[in-house]
Amino acid sequence: MPEFYRVALDAMGGDIGPKATIAGAAMALKAIPDLYLILVGNEGQIKQHLASHPLEDEQLARTKIVHSGSVVNMHDKATCILREKKDSSIRVAAECVKNGDAHGMVSMGHTGAAMVASMKVIGNLPGIDRPALAAIFPSLRGTPTVLLDVGANVDCKADHIAKFAVMGAVYAEVVLGVDKPKVGVLSVGEEDGKGSETTKQASSLLRDLDLNFGGNAEGRDIWNGDFDVVACDGFVGNVVLKSSEALAEGIRYGLKESLECNLLGRMGGLLVRPSMRNFYKKLDYAEYGGAPLLGVNGISIIGHGRSHGKAVASAIRAAARGDKNRINDRIQERMRRLLDAGHGK
Amino acid sequence: MPEFYRVALDAMGGDIGPKATIAGAAMALKAIPDLYLILVGNEGQIKQHLASHPLEDEQLARTKIVHSGSVVNMHDKATCILREKKDSSIRVAAECVKNGDAHGMVSMGHTGAAMVASMKVIGNLPGIDRPALAAIFPSLRGTPTVLLDVGANVDCKADHIAKFAVMGAVYAEVVLGVDKPKVGVLSVGEEDGKGSETTKQASSLLRDLDLNFGGNAEGRDIWNGDFDVVACDGFVGNVVLKSSEALAEGIRYGLKESLECNLLGRMGGLLVRPSMRNFYKKLDYAEYGGAPLLGVNGISIIGHGRSHGKAVASAIRAAARGDKNRINDRIQERMRRLLDAGHGK
Repeated sequence: MPEFYRVALDAMGGDIGPKATIAGAAMALKAIPDLYLILVGNEGQIKQHLASHPLEDEQLARTKIVHSGSVVNMHDKATCILREKKDSSIRVAAECVKNGDAHGMVSMGHTGAAMVASMKVIGNLPGIDRPALAAIFPSLRGTPTVLLDVGANVDCKADHIAKFAVMGAVYAEVVLGVDKPKVGVLSVGEEDGKGSETTKQASSLLRDLDLNFGGNAEGRDIWNGDFDVVACDGFVGNVVLKSSEALAEGIRYGLKESLECNLLGRMGGLLVRPSMRNFYKKLDYAEYGGAPLLGVNGISIIGHGRSHGKAVASAIRAAARGDKNRINDRIQERMRRLLDAGHGK
Repeated sequence: MPEFYRVALDAMGGDIGPKATIAGAAMALKAIPDLYLILVGNEGQIKQHLASHPLEDEQLARTKIVHSGSVVNMHDKATCILREKKDSSIRVAAECVKNGDAHGMVSMGHTGAAMVASMKVIGNLPGIDRPALAAIFPSLRGTPTVLLDVGANVDCKADHIAKFAVMGAVYAEVVLGVDKPKVGVLSVGEEDGKGSETTKQASSLLRDLDLNFGGNAEGRDIWNGDFDVVACDGFVGNVVLKSSEALAEGIRYGLKESLECNLLGRMGGLLVRPSMRNFYKKLDYAEYGGAPLLGVNGISIIGHGRSHGKAVASAIRAAARGDKNRINDRIQERMRRLLDAGHGK
């Protein structure tokens, strides 16, 4: 019997709900022969949506439905899964990882609740006190950049940032397939002497490691493809993520509006639409599926609320790849070297 | 005799040099009747470029050339103006403000050197230990957002951020003409409890002031027009500024390339070009001319190296408006209220 990569999918999460998650599940089951999916959520709804995707018996045999009684809404507090909503699909998916039924979980639901479920129910990897949420920024030059942390941790110390860098490098290697990823610490100038006290210390921790360490990365390096992994405090990362999303969307809609203002623009707009769509595909998060929360004792991928089937399938694939390549074993191995280097100083 | 707003222009600064700065000077002299310009740089080059702009005698009478012997290059260190390049146009322009010949300076040259010249030659406003560089982000919805600090200060304390907010509010009022600007502290969530220890303290300093304080601003609020002024640590601000520039440019060139890939795109591209250009005007920094360095004992506007004439003229206009509306008196008055409120706690 082959080894299966077992992923628990929060089937209720996301703005579109089961329609998108089950579509993604079906795509993933077809594409990944050694995937086993636990579909967590309202059993009736899951069955109904599954019925609209023609799956072979062999594929259906690689699924299991685990019923859950409630859903975390966008207005709920992240901590609701600890008390009021213990039976929510997010929490039940996390329980599947905790009790060993699944190796990883995927949720397109409430980001905060998915983070709390991952850290408090699944728990942290031994040696990691702060898991980090990693966003995959699609580079305009073709190769993505992993930026972490983007939201889990504010007020980071140097050794947190150094650990984020190490975890991001492992993710880029084993999930994105980057050979010797170039790693940087986000700062305000290229030169070593530039930055805050925290970033300078983080760099000095990383310099002697067995890593392709490129020193300081600047804001522009998140987009120009010069670095594969950029580590930062969760405060800065979160601000960059949200401002970038707003800017890219604003440009997209602003251009569209501006083309609709006059006849020439409308005519031209019809002609350029396919090229523009091709370009925007490069910026599409659906390609990478979601943000991994690195440093938990299992795999946790948290997707965008607006994810369609393709993004859900990509997130499931990321979870399966992480599992296949034993991402957490490799993170722990690297972390030991970081700690040894730190003690050696 | 009318009162003149006296501005020293670093005529040598910027990637384009005197061709752009003198074009901007000529535009500003025509547009602002009570402007007096001190043109600092190589006298021969300045005269040569001035000759190509037909100015009336009255306009020429409102100019003076002050010769300087050297230029700060992009590869020079910011501190070169203190030792090796004391005769550089940036430093000589700052000396004009220091000795009272001018009320403000404008430079499109080396940002770091212009900051050092402003802080070390002109000096700080009494009561301000950290001047802040303020970027004017063109909002996609029409009203700009002042983000500060974007580069002068890393490792800020709460009272620094509160002072940035106050200075930014005065700038939005007196230079951008915003009535009761809405001010926020950049953070990682809307709710008061979210953010770092520093941002929470900064908010509590600002809450009781006579300001239109809107609490926490998120990354997306820099672009959506919900806040007029957003205050942050110079580290975060610099990263946001540089990543936004890279993203906006990347999208612009990426779209262009993608249109050139096929015949339909090329044909449509010709038709949509005017509409696209109209849209990109909204994102154009040339509208606001440059970043004011707030908190120095005079006015200092530092422009983008790539500035053309229009951006130079906008920067000169910003300096003249700041002078006309006594920006520094108003900053000091507001600062006293901040300090009184702080001491009252």
